[in-house]
Amino acid sequence: MSSGKDLDAVLEQLEKEGVPLHRFVERVGNKNLAVLLRRRFLERKLGVSLSSVGSTIIDFEEVEGRNIENAIGATQIPLAVVGPLRVEGEYARGDFYVPMATTEGALVAGVNRGAKAITLSGGARCRVVRDGMTRAPLFRLPSVADAVEFVRWVETSFSEIKKAAESTTRFGKLVRVEPYIMGNLVWLRFVYTTGDAMGMNMATIATDAACRYILEKYPGSVTLVALSGNMCVDKKPAHINALLGRGKTVIAEALIPSHVLEKVFRARAEDIHRVNVEKNLLGSSYAGSLSFNAHFANIIAAIFIATGQDVAQVVESSMGWTSTEVRDSGSLYIAVTLPSLEVGTVGGGTQLPTQREALSIMGVAGSGNPPGTNARKLAEIIAATVLAGELNLLAALARNELASAHAKARRGELAASRRG
Amino acid sequence: MSSGKDLDAVLEQLEKEGVPLHRFVERVGNKNLAVLLRRRFLERKLGVSLSSVGSTIIDFEEVEGRNIENAIGATQIPLAVVGPLRVEGEYARGDFYVPMATTEGALVAGVNRGAKAITLSGGARCRVVRDGMTRAPLFRLPSVADAVEFVRWVETSFSEIKKAAESTTRFGKLVRVEPYIMGNLVWLRFVYTTGDAMGMNMATIATDAACRYILEKYPGSVTLVALSGNMCVDKKPAHINALLGRGKTVIAEALIPSHVLEKVFRARAEDIHRVNVEKNLLGSSYAGSLSFNAHFANIIAAIFIATGQDVAQVVESSMGWTSTEVRDSGSLYIAVTLPSLEVGTVGGGTQLPTQREALSIMGVAGSGNPPGTNARKLAEIIAATVLAGELNLLAALARNELASAHAKARRGELAASRRG
Amino acid sequence: MSSGKDLDAVLEQLEKEGVPLHRFVERVGNKNLAVLLRRRFLERKLGVSLSSVGSTIIDFEEVEGRNIENAIGATQIPLAVVGPLRVEGEYARGDFYVPMATTEGALVAGVNRGAKAITLSGGARCRVVRDGMTRAPLFRLPSVADAVEFVRWVETSFSEIKKAAESTTRFGKLVRVEPYIMGNLVWLRFVYTTGDAMGMNMATIATDAACRYILEKYPGSVTLVALSGNMCVDKKPAHINALLGRGKTVIAEALIPSHVLEKVFRARAEDIHRVNVEKNLLGSSYAGSLSFNAHFANIIAAIFIATGQDVAQVVESSMGWTSTEVRDSGSLYIAVTLPSLEVGTVGGGTQLPTQREALSIMGVAGSGNPPGTNARKLAEIIAATVLAGELNLLAALARNELASAHAKARRGELAASRRG
Amino acid sequence: MSSGKDLDAVLEQLEKEGVPLHRFVERVGNKNLAVLLRRRFLERKLGVSLSSVGSTIIDFEEVEGRNIENAIGATQIPLAVVGPLRVEGEYARGDFYVPMATTEGALVAGVNRGAKAITLSGGARCRVVRDGMTRAPLFRLPSVADAVEFVRWVETSFSEIKKAAESTTRFGKLVRVEPYIMGNLVWLRFVYTTGDAMGMNMATIATDAACRYILEKYPGSVTLVALSGNMCVDKKPAHINALLGRGKTVIAEALIPSHVLEKVFRARAEDIHRVNVEKNLLGSSYAGSLSFNAHFANIIAAIFIATGQDVAQVVESSMGWTSTEVRDSGSLYIAVTLPSLEVGTVGGGTQLPTQREALSIMGVAGSGNPPGTNARKLAEIIAATVLAGELNLLAALARNELASAHAKARRGELAASRRG
Repeated sequence: MSSGKDLDAVLEQLEKEGVPLHRFVERVGNKNLAVLLRRRFLERKLGVSLSSVGSTIIDFEEVEGRNIENAIGATQIPLAVVGPLRVEGEYARGDFYVPMATTEGALVAGVNRGAKAITLSGGARCRVVRDGMTRAPLFRLPSVADAVEFVRWVETSFSEIKKAAESTTRFGKLVRVEPYIMGNLVWLRFVYTTGDAMGMNMATIATDAACRYILEKYPGSVTLVALSGNMCVDKKPAHINALLGRGKTVIAEALIPSHVLEKVFRARAEDIHRVNVEKNLLGSSYAGSLSFNAHFANIIAAIFIATGQDVAQVVESSMGWTSTEVRDSGSLYIAVTLPSLEVGTVGGGTQLPTQREALSIMGVAGSGNPPGTNARKLAEIIAATVLAGELNLLAALARNELASAHAKARRGELAASRRG
Repeated sequence: MSSGKDLDAVLEQLEKEGVPLHRFVERVGNKNLAVLLRRRFLERKLGVSLSSVGSTIIDFEEVEGRNIENAIGATQIPLAVVGPLRVEGEYARGDFYVPMATTEGALVAGVNRGAKAITLSGGARCRVVRDGMTRAPLFRLPSVADAVEFVRWVETSFSEIKKAAESTTRFGKLVRVEPYIMGNLVWLRFVYTTGDAMGMNMATIATDAACRYILEKYPGSVTLVALSGNMCVDKKPAHINALLGRGKTVIAEALIPSHVLEKVFRARAEDIHRVNVEKNLLGSSYAGSLSFNAHFANIIAAIFIATGQDVAQVVESSMGWTSTEVRDSGSLYIAVTLPSLEVGTVGGGTQLPTQREALSIMGVAGSGNPPGTNARKLAEIIAATVLAGELNLLAALARNELASAHAKARRGELAASRRG
Repeated sequence: MSSGKDLDAVLEQLEKEGVPLHRFVERVGNKNLAVLLRRRFLERKLGVSLSSVGSTIIDFEEVEGRNIENAIGATQIPLAVVGPLRVEGEYARGDFYVPMATTEGALVAGVNRGAKAITLSGGARCRVVRDGMTRAPLFRLPSVADAVEFVRWVETSFSEIKKAAESTTRFGKLVRVEPYIMGNLVWLRFVYTTGDAMGMNMATIATDAACRYILEKYPGSVTLVALSGNMCVDKKPAHINALLGRGKTVIAEALIPSHVLEKVFRARAEDIHRVNVEKNLLGSSYAGSLSFNAHFANIIAAIFIATGQDVAQVVESSMGWTSTEVRDSGSLYIAVTLPSLEVGTVGGGTQLPTQREALSIMGVAGSGNPPGTNARKLAEIIAATVLAGELNLLAALARNELASAHAKARRGELAASRRG
Repeated sequence: MSSGKDLDAVLEQLEKEGVPLHRFVERVGNKNLAVLLRRRFLERKLGVSLSSVGSTIIDFEEVEGRNIENAIGATQIPLAVVGPLRVEGEYARGDFYVPMATTEGALVAGVNRGAKAITLSGGARCRVVRDGMTRAPLFRLPSVADAVEFVRWVETSFSEIKKAAESTTRFGKLVRVEPYIMGNLVWLRFVYTTGDAMGMNMATIATDAACRYILEKYPGSVTLVALSGNMCVDKKPAHINALLGRGKTVIAEALIPSHVLEKVFRARAEDIHRVNVEKNLLGSSYAGSLSFNAHFANIIAAIFIATGQDVAQVVESSMGWTSTEVRDSGSLYIAVTLPSLEVGTVGGGTQLPTQREALSIMGVAGSGNPPGTNARKLAEIIAATVLAGELNLLAALARNELASAHAKARRGELAASRRG
């Protein structure tokens, strides 16, 4: 649109006026140009080259102000697929390829090996057992008696509060409000179904409206301390989400026959079970962990990046348990339980070009029919992929255990066990 | 390199032979071509378009097998900067622009506002107070008496074990081995300094060598259960990392005068302090959280993506505390403590083109002189940016509290308080 | 009843026959005599004197087999009272003396000081905000789909299950069943109101009946792993009880004017608040604690021993938060929240002679009218006493802070701060 | 010493003068008389009888002011023994009877059954693997840089600080000081060996002296926030104690052959292992617990009451893990790990008559030779008894699982499974 020289002239003018970077858009009237100018500004000021960052297909007319501010270009992360992975869920049924964006070598290969074993064993059976996005504003009352009174009023006013909350959203439905009292403080944990959106923004806007209704109508004295009082709880590891769920609570399981364990991993069910008990259960408990698994986070992070999820939510989305049993004839029952997987197929970063394509690989781009089914399908596929990752890593470690007897390094195991 | 038609012919041949995706490289002898073929395979099989995913500057000759396997292209994430942000650390001194890759609207703008307030107040003072990457293999002994004996042997053999571990690495130095006994199980938590690398792979490879030494030399009976016994603890939220640290333990603080609070946020120190106590401390504790902050994870995730860190490590890197005090004349003392920030400026995803450019914006691309100084500088800048994010969000919530009195929605606050 | 010589003859006969201690009752046909013989047995065998242990008013005809087996006498623990303590609860109203059995010097004196300050300030306002005893059996199903199916069946069979459970008890009422799924495992957390009994045995017996009903009627395959699956959760510190409550969730608060703080403690509200934030909130969180208080356990343990509660339940009954605010004119708002205080006034050790007298001091011995009111009254009095203990210790520490400026040891403070 | 009439006259005079209960001693010049008068005061004021409370062998001339204030008499708790229990520790070797004071029916019988199985299997092997009492004062510095500086000064001044601390105690030795920084706050966790005393008071007094030294000598500005900053951490459940230990870290284990399991419990090793994994590990983790066992607290509480320990410390002393393995020929390896068992044989309530007799039953009354050996011997015996309790309850539950198949209530199992 303009030559380097022209750009520099514009930039010099902006600098002379002391226009901060976030005001560039309003000054030059074009978001893509503003991105270019900011990049140029940094290159000149810092003496660096940002040409790779500038090589992007993102149209900032669409994105600046919606997904980001002060943009200067894009980050590119390698994208791969694992699969085919057979999934037998309620929403996802069939063989899937799962996109993972990562920079960690050996991760995709390992998950792929797990996927192979699961698929050979008939697939991962999945269930979404809870679904609800939360937001928990915090109120302060004059006294505990007032707090009790306030909670009672909220309970009896539920239908009006629900109406106020839902007035802000087409898909969000307020399911319940959980009250928690401490001294004279009250947290109200609002729980919503949110269609195919991950729903945090939807829940926040609806809860804001609900709070305004409450503050206006409640006959007594009450103060809103914060629209989020950290009992939601968003982007922090917390037991409340493990116990009560946030987003989707999803479980994936598989029964792996001994011959598949032998063929794919050269491992035995009892050894895998033992590693799970001693590492994932005893080890995690000794570490004071809220997560009793080997490396859920690796798989969650890679799929979240690939599909435009809110990556900071890897924190709680990756919490969960791996549980195992040795069953008849040396087969291994293995399950992963993800109590608070927060995913969507619309909104946020899911609209971006590469992210949307990644979703399309799994057949979950955009809204489902009925709404909510795409997000749940995605949740089931993710859980199945996490199962593949856990199975592979535990099997690699179990094999390692035997190997250790004759103290021989095996590079493949090492790479596999690097994670988790 | 070849026309679509030729590609399809190659692909049909591969499919006919049943070659799995991860074998494409060895068949076509060119990693970039393999990426293209896999993409084409998915497009044909699934009836989707992956053209955006294919539009990448990444050279898979460099990346496939090192950072990823089964690659099909790249994910593009919008990249922005916040700044200038003044940092007064031991390693980072001056005004910095900080790259953040995110799809969450309003995040960058909010952190930028916090950065402005901090810079106006003289900057964020930072200190790295601990530094060490960990790996904790798990051993099983016949009995508790044997476990005690084993630990004693490890302690007296420390220098030999150190030699074995360090034989695998140029920069990694084994600092200490922390033993933890449970029944007849023993976890040995190896702690290393790792130069400018985040160091998890370095630590794993070195610990693997140490374990082989131990297994070979220990005169008694001992079994290695797993090279990682979940007390490291990697990519799981756990109190051990909050207490003892993993990666960098880094603290950033600032003293914000009342006039800056008023000017930038229209908020008062006592209100901000109160939100911090009631939301971040009481709220998090009620939620059973290991993190006592508002939204560290948002900032950590965005910088990690931008700079090629291991994004799954956002889980523990985002743990930490925000602490506040009201000081003289209504000024606000605010500090963020990040006990286990795992970052590097070499290795992993830091070599990728856009990631390396992002690091260069902060002057921390590649190795520091002496080694280790770049990673610590990065840690200080990240902590300062986290401080900016916390300050901004707490101030927005504190203002919200007053606003709530007259029950008026304010869009800006809403957006700001959406996070956390 | 018999001389020492006769006793020895009986004992020699029992020893000759190799009768174990727990069979003495059936052999000598008198429980008090069996107690005496066991004591004598130990004295002879070990060469010790147990005369103090033998000096007891307990009638083992009443107690052996109900409260204990293999009895040899009694332990005597010093008993004191604190008070008068003014309580303004829903069930407890007036000035109370509170019995505490302890061997820890300075504890009673400190709590008494806190009681004085509270009473001078108009008393402790108390509320029981939740009430329910829990028992959570654990079931194993063949698969996650079966687990989901099972939970649905339990939900639709609630009224029958309730009938089965309540058939075993006069006062116990099943309020709800909370299901928690992990993989193919299902915990059902049964919640009961239990009248004036603490109710754990009542809940266990009722839940056992419910489980038998479930096992008999459920059409599918299901296994009961354990009648208690550790999600109840009894006698272990756990966030689930902090969050959802077990026994009584009770809150006590007071507003202490500055002149009372000055007179009783020579301390200021802002210093006390600061100690609470930095010690009880930040310190506890750094320690990875589930309890955010100074020394609830001291008060709970002493009252539990005095009143015949299940002392092992001090573990969860002492969890909770102390929250503070500085209010107008330098007054201090202070509240204690005890989420899982497990107490009763009938059953268990409450029937024993000294324990019953201790309950009578507070006017809560035996059943209330209506049932449940005595146990709630006791819960309110305990919370008020805990509040007194916290207030005193925080004030002592806050004073200590100032004292530290001129580095002078003050013995009284030391003793006070020894606890917690 | 005086008739009821005379007493009432004295009491009326005291009441007329408004003498509070805690001033009775100084007025009547006799502690036992003061106890009597207080009891009488309550009886008259409240219209209750406290004759049982008054029937005590405790001499309050010894106890009032040392172990308690405001005493009115004593609480009597039934006392039993379990045993013989074979212990193969470092300090405790032989067959022991273990005193337990409890009001919970079926507890002693169950532990006794476990003791029988262990003894039949050759005994419980025990090891004290760590020993140290802690106290963690909290300091506030102006800034994080000052905090770092302060910690360095403390480290270089260790020998002087140690001298100051140890000047207050004959047996206490300062082993190390662990520093923890958060923002501008610093906790110094002092760790002491304390001979045969539990040592909390010893540690507090020594740390107070150390703090005074620090405050006097430190050249910079520093404030002591509190002598205990909740990282000690005393009487609160906290992961720091599980991880790093407080008091004794002690482990007991046993290998129970299948024929003993069958004979004593009619249970199989694999079923017991399974209950342990699914209840104690998975169940506890789901509950957000810090304790991974069935009912350590029951045993700890009963022995603590019997032997004059600080009963409020049951909170952290009962934390810990039960770990199990199925070994050859269906034998069961079972271990209990108690990370923070706080016990002593001198000081506190151990001097009281019945408590001292209880200690003498185990041969651990008073000081050991050398000092410290009696406390460690007691720790080993307690751990072995806890092992007995866990083994019995897990076996009962495992049997229950089978029983459930034919849905038949068995009262014995019920009672056994009631706990935990």
